Amino acid sequence: MSTSTDTVKPGTVPLLNPILAQETEDHLYHFGILRSAVDLPKMFGDVKFVCCGGSPTRLALYAQLFAKDMGIQLGKNLSNSDRYVLYKTGPVLWVNHGMGAPSLSIMLVEIIKLLHYAQATNVTFFRLGTSGGLGVPPGTVLISSGAVNGEMEEYHVQYIMGKKTLRPTVLDQGLKDDLFKLAKELNLPVDSGKTLCADDFYEGQARLDGAFCEYTMKDKFAFLEKLYAKGIRNIEMESTCFSAMTHRAGIKAAIVCVTLLNRMKGDQVQIDKSEYVEFETRPFKLITTYIKRQIAANQ
Amino acid sequence: MSTSTDTVKPGTVPLLNPILAQETEDHLYHFGILRSAVDLPKMFGDVKFVCCGGSPTRLALYAQLFAKDMGIQLGKNLSNSDRYVLYKTGPVLWVNHGMGAPSLSIMLVEIIKLLHYAQATNVTFFRLGTSGGLGVPPGTVLISSGAVNGEMEEYHVQYIMGKKTLRPTVLDQGLKDDLFKLAKELNLPVDSGKTLCADDFYEGQARLDGAFCEYTMKDKFAFLEKLYAKGIRNIEMESTCFSAMTHRAGIKAAIVCVTLLNRMKGDQVQIDKSEYVEFETRPFKLITTYIKRQIAANQ
Repeated sequence: MSTSTDTVKPGTVPLLNPILAQETEDHLYHFGILRSAVDLPKMFGDVKFVCCGGSPTRLALYAQLFAKDMGIQLGKNLSNSDRYVLYKTGPVLWVNHGMGAPSLSIMLVEIIKLLHYAQATNVTFFRLGTSGGLGVPPGTVLISSGAVNGEMEEYHVQYIMGKKTLRPTVLDQGLKDDLFKLAKELNLPVDSGKTLCADDFYEGQARLDGAFCEYTMKDKFAFLEKLYAKGIRNIEMESTCFSAMTHRAGIKAAIVCVTLLNRMKGDQVQIDKSEYVEFETRPFKLITTYIKRQIAANQ
Repeated sequence: MSTSTDTVKPGTVPLLNPILAQETEDHLYHFGILRSAVDLPKMFGDVKFVCCGGSPTRLALYAQLFAKDMGIQLGKNLSNSDRYVLYKTGPVLWVNHGMGAPSLSIMLVEIIKLLHYAQATNVTFFRLGTSGGLGVPPGTVLISSGAVNGEMEEYHVQYIMGKKTLRPTVLDQGLKDDLFKLAKELNLPVDSGKTLCADDFYEGQARLDGAFCEYTMKDKFAFLEKLYAKGIRNIEMESTCFSAMTHRAGIKAAIVCVTLLNRMKGDQVQIDKSEYVEFETRPFKLITTYIKRQIAANQ
């Protein structure tokens, strides 16, 4: 019987689903891509890097900047759905994932399937995000060494068939170290530490400015100090899912977030538009320098 | 001291945050709206209904259809951020929330704050979504009677200061009954039951077509049968957060989702574009008929 696993090359992004591996058709529903309707190996077989982040506009901008930098024409958005944007610039995919682990998880599952069908090999995933910093100044490029959930455990929680399932959150430490050294070389303000993945922006991050608040300012600072003491240096909303799912698929991955504020000082993001734009180019500068060197080294 | 609570009219959307209630400024960050920069009571003081759903395009389309139906001009997108869209048509707001509870929670917190600052009173929230049905044919308008989480409990889970906090998921049963009767009157295929809120689209919903699958087809159907026996009639990704947060704020709310497929029969959404468009107008038809009658009754 002909199955999609017959032609798997070493290093191919895996499909860890024996049931789906028997099928020849698949609808990547949230991208509006039907497996049989396009030549996925031709379109995506050369992909080596996937860069993702929350905002569709930011990811489109990143794709545009990278295309310009590489002297190539930026093609159209390859997503046929309004759920995510998807751009390709040579061996680099740019895709947004919305806010929070559930939204990210859908993107990751469908991009992993797409890359498997495309027979893409040795692919590295990067999340380029924004975050709240802990004890680091705004604008710091924070490279995650690990990711903890809302109960301070290094697991991504899934509920499968009504049961709680824990997936270890593991990031590639060699890649993290390489990125850290490169950031230093590029004179980017950089730090490394664990990342807290919250399920909301307000109470889950101990903010005082939400629609609901049942704790005090003292409680908040005690909590943030506790996080700091555990080696946590920033807070965002996707890191446990991102690190657990890439690890489970055997995909090398890194999380690089710029911090927009120091949560030890306040809750509201106070930077202006131009500063925001400069801050969000920092993870981009780091990751694209890394990618360009990898491309050059493999040519 | 002048605080935002001095001028609260009966029925005003509450701000259940005594710390923020002392402040005069707020940045509704994910909408790019600064409280002091605009006259919120003038812009949003007359809002009586908030209609939300995942997709930005669908919500923009709903706003456009409703404006046309009411013979009014549709204004521009009032969100200054790419995270959500926000349209206003008379007393009705149209806002998208992305996919999953975390993304929804940010929208709800900031819209609740916006409506509080605007001194909007007696506001009803509706979620108009898409979902997978359980034992009901595709195209059914499913009005949720309650919402259960991944462990089959009627709670929305929040992690606050490292501790698990359970928020009861409660929907207005009178509103649900009124909508059910109205759907019958409009000859829409309708059903009512509990809704399972999953944190992902694949394993969390026992799908067999994800990038990972460690269970069998038999496991899947046993799980879906178990859900059916518990009175669960559809699965989506926002219902626990939506019902818990509106209940906590004392806001009357309903969840009306069309089912795109019967999960008892398959996992992939097989309907074509035109059928999809017709299906997604069904919750719209029901909710806007309800809203128009409410407006007429209060004139």
